[in-house]
Amino acid sequence: MVDPVTSEKVSFSRQKLDVYGDAHPKKLLKAISEDGDHLKNLAEQHILSADQFSREELLQLFRLSAKFEGNPARFRTPLKGKILISAFYEPSTRTRLSFESAWHRLGGDIMSITDRSTTGIAKGESLEDVGEMFNNYGDCVVLRDSNEESVHLMMDSLRIPIINAGNGVDEHPTQALADLYTILKWRPGFISNPEETAKIKMGIVGIPNKMRTVRSLLKMLAKFPEFFEEVIIFHDGSSDDIFDPDQLEQLKESGLNVVQETDLKARLPELDIIYINAIAWVGNTFESFGDKFVINKDSPLKKDAIIMHPLARGEELDTNLDGTAHNWYFSQARGAVFLRMALLTCMCERTERVMDIVE
Amino acid sequence: MVDPVTSEKVSFSRQKLDVYGDAHPKKLLKAISEDGDHLKNLAEQHILSADQFSREELLQLFRLSAKFEGNPARFRTPLKGKILISAFYEPSTRTRLSFESAWHRLGGDIMSITDRSTTGIAKGESLEDVGEMFNNYGDCVVLRDSNEESVHLMMDSLRIPIINAGNGVDEHPTQALADLYTILKWRPGFISNPEETAKIKMGIVGIPNKMRTVRSLLKMLAKFPEFFEEVIIFHDGSSDDIFDPDQLEQLKESGLNVVQETDLKARLPELDIIYINAIAWVGNTFESFGDKFVINKDSPLKKDAIIMHPLARGEELDTNLDGTAHNWYFSQARGAVFLRMALLTCMCERTERVMDIVE
Amino acid sequence: MVDPVTSEKVSFSRQKLDVYGDAHPKKLLKAISEDGDHLKNLAEQHILSADQFSREELLQLFRLSAKFEGNPARFRTPLKGKILISAFYEPSTRTRLSFESAWHRLGGDIMSITDRSTTGIAKGESLEDVGEMFNNYGDCVVLRDSNEESVHLMMDSLRIPIINAGNGVDEHPTQALADLYTILKWRPGFISNPEETAKIKMGIVGIPNKMRTVRSLLKMLAKFPEFFEEVIIFHDGSSDDIFDPDQLEQLKESGLNVVQETDLKARLPELDIIYINAIAWVGNTFESFGDKFVINKDSPLKKDAIIMHPLARGEELDTNLDGTAHNWYFSQARGAVFLRMALLTCMCERTERVMDIVE
Repeated sequence: MVDPVTSEKVSFSRQKLDVYGDAHPKKLLKAISEDGDHLKNLAEQHILSADQFSREELLQLFRLSAKFEGNPARFRTPLKGKILISAFYEPSTRTRLSFESAWHRLGGDIMSITDRSTTGIAKGESLEDVGEMFNNYGDCVVLRDSNEESVHLMMDSLRIPIINAGNGVDEHPTQALADLYTILKWRPGFISNPEETAKIKMGIVGIPNKMRTVRSLLKMLAKFPEFFEEVIIFHDGSSDDIFDPDQLEQLKESGLNVVQETDLKARLPELDIIYINAIAWVGNTFESFGDKFVINKDSPLKKDAIIMHPLARGEELDTNLDGTAHNWYFSQARGAVFLRMALLTCMCERTERVMDIVE
Repeated sequence: MVDPVTSEKVSFSRQKLDVYGDAHPKKLLKAISEDGDHLKNLAEQHILSADQFSREELLQLFRLSAKFEGNPARFRTPLKGKILISAFYEPSTRTRLSFESAWHRLGGDIMSITDRSTTGIAKGESLEDVGEMFNNYGDCVVLRDSNEESVHLMMDSLRIPIINAGNGVDEHPTQALADLYTILKWRPGFISNPEETAKIKMGIVGIPNKMRTVRSLLKMLAKFPEFFEEVIIFHDGSSDDIFDPDQLEQLKESGLNVVQETDLKARLPELDIIYINAIAWVGNTFESFGDKFVINKDSPLKKDAIIMHPLARGEELDTNLDGTAHNWYFSQARGAVFLRMALLTCMCERTERVMDIVE
Repeated sequence: MVDPVTSEKVSFSRQKLDVYGDAHPKKLLKAISEDGDHLKNLAEQHILSADQFSREELLQLFRLSAKFEGNPARFRTPLKGKILISAFYEPSTRTRLSFESAWHRLGGDIMSITDRSTTGIAKGESLEDVGEMFNNYGDCVVLRDSNEESVHLMMDSLRIPIINAGNGVDEHPTQALADLYTILKWRPGFISNPEETAKIKMGIVGIPNKMRTVRSLLKMLAKFPEFFEEVIIFHDGSSDDIFDPDQLEQLKESGLNVVQETDLKARLPELDIIYINAIAWVGNTFESFGDKFVINKDSPLKKDAIIMHPLARGEELDTNLDGTAHNWYFSQARGAVFLRMALLTCMCERTERVMDIVE
């Protein structure tokens, strides 16, 4: 006889997994002095690229993110009465829900577009005209589109801020913000005690020229080149155009020490951070990448190494690492919600509702 | 000349139709003494199956549902600040909107996924990983998927509650809750005056092995076998596997008197409840069922018989019954919203906001 | 080397473009005396057709719209606790978001359906039954469907109000409301000083028989025939059925002076309003119309002429007109949100929360 499902079988625990990273934001919070002044420009900016942030803006954004993450129930209504237009013309669960959750936690309302075919664009409306309409309908736009140009076209007519949540193979700046926030939660000593904090060897599995997350991440790391002893791009050697023509030059000019390798295993034992990524965009679709670069519990990881992963996981990252202290990818996803809360609050002119010192 | 549409032509009345069932919840409310203690376990349980509920939990849930239904305007904000992830990977209006309406009536916010193809699952993300992400984004998940296993997979990684809103041909437990709630609204005497309340002959048109609503309903009826003189499954005799191998055994072990018949008309005059159902799942799609079992105003219904129907209506249930006292299917759909409100309030740790006595 | 994106490059201004129309609603507000009495019938009406409104209702609706537009931050919660069912079975960005923005600005919650294939209708559920369910789930329905009959079918079972947001080639009454509102914002003298206000020559590029916006607009203009010296329908002469058999008769009976022309350029210098429209419905899809009728900055427009456009813009309206005083199409789209706020407030029995005088 089939056993009936009893209430014991469906019990769950609300306790957090004891992964590293969850308890850390308070150290980062303490390391950075609050100064909202640096954030006031964000109320008059679109978010297009990881390039556009100053170091001071980044640190204050991370501080505010840590403030939200450390006490999620404290601020419930900073965006009350504000309307988000969440326009995802390309498939996404993680990024769309991360933004929408951030917005709802701040008390705002949302209108979602999850499919280009249900919109006026299908009738031939231009993106500039869509932007003009959005001015009337909401207070902020989050846009993902497989076409790089879409966000640029929409920006032309917007008088409300827009966030690039992924434009083709170009950029995904808020992911890069969340990535750097994760790194600083892990090693807040870079801020509180820079002299005695060891520099990082970071390995990135991915193709900077085909992955928007990697492109934006590298731009972000280039804001703090002094944190990194070496940033190693791992690829399988099959492609000639790992970097955009000017991409590597821009990075080196910043002082970031970027090198390339094809043998992940050989270098793994010395890496402090492994950033692994599975999906590369090719044309208008994506293809899996990096099955040659699989890491699991038996990989020769440095004892304190952390693993980061920005996207839908494939076979490249074994689930047997989930319960280990190397797993900072769950913390990275969690932190992204609070990072987005911080960014949205500032962009929507509500900084003074969550910070003590704003000019 | 075309008559212009005048304001008279488009007038409507907000008055409720005088169908039975609408005014009843207060009798049920009176019949059950409030004791929230029995509901506290629901804050740490996923809802997977009709099996998992105790009799005491069920009665207290129905009492709370009746409290909501009897005075819909009383509780507006029990779920304020909470976020629902409404994930319907299989087409649905009724169930999705029923859950979302329940959540909104309680003051919560919602993020909807109405199409699997717009999600990261399309990029190969596992359901365990989706569950892990959902932990960061919301406070409760409602999932419908044509794959039976999906809810089980997602449960593994969730630290927030999930409700199975239909998993393939397996179960649809909240529909069964709404069904039993309807029966008790109709005959509250089972609670207030069991000795003098006549037992029910209930006919179910459908295949317990292919219809998740019927499977869950039978498990639910098996919690209260003493209400039923006989539960008759009507099918057309064309199928060998009306029941799952162990399903019938489980039901009989509970004491529920379940029999099978093929001639609905012959038994119709003696049935107190006719539960009719049109759609059976076969593989990954559904097929219409029961055109042999049509009921209408001229069918030989017992005078006081009530008709229930859980799903999108096809030809099996004639609309000429809508205006009669046999129509409890509209009341059943209405009650489902309040039943879901009760369940969601308890699952999301807000029972104490709506009940007087919670330990 | 690629220039990094600096914060200057992504700066934007929240200032409104100095297009005509934005500052005007206060004149209209002043011209009409508040009298909410005329709006009370709207709480018991579906919105099906432009025909159904009385002159007094229209003026009071426009006054309330102007009140909202003139001070958008004043009323934030009139629809608090109300749930909108936004059912767009046909592609739309502009209209869906316009309604949803209006609803959110009034503090209400929303459940969206953006695709017929995700609904129970795909399983064969009738629209009457969907309407019956909607009674349980929400407080108002907005429906767009390419099938003319859908709104009529759903109306049959609804006990909550429904708004026709476009039914095939038939009507789109709230667009027509927004259109007439725009005209009165532009020339409030028709109300405040009718004797000295010049009558309008209005050109409409489009086919009244194939465009629901034009059909509804003409019905709306026919409520105030004394505003118009002449209303000229421009078409390319290729079609025999510019008007429905009785449509022209109905218009003339109202006293509206409607004529037809094929040469837009010849008449352009004398037109006060040019209403241009690109998309005509043919069967179940739409086709572009009017590439013969392109207007741009070099067109021989009257100095004070205004241009209106209700839909996704194609090539018929050059973007080089956007920065000119002829551009009232942006103002028209903006005003539509406030018009819908006014209508929704009245339909959902909350007029007394936003008006001083309601009987």
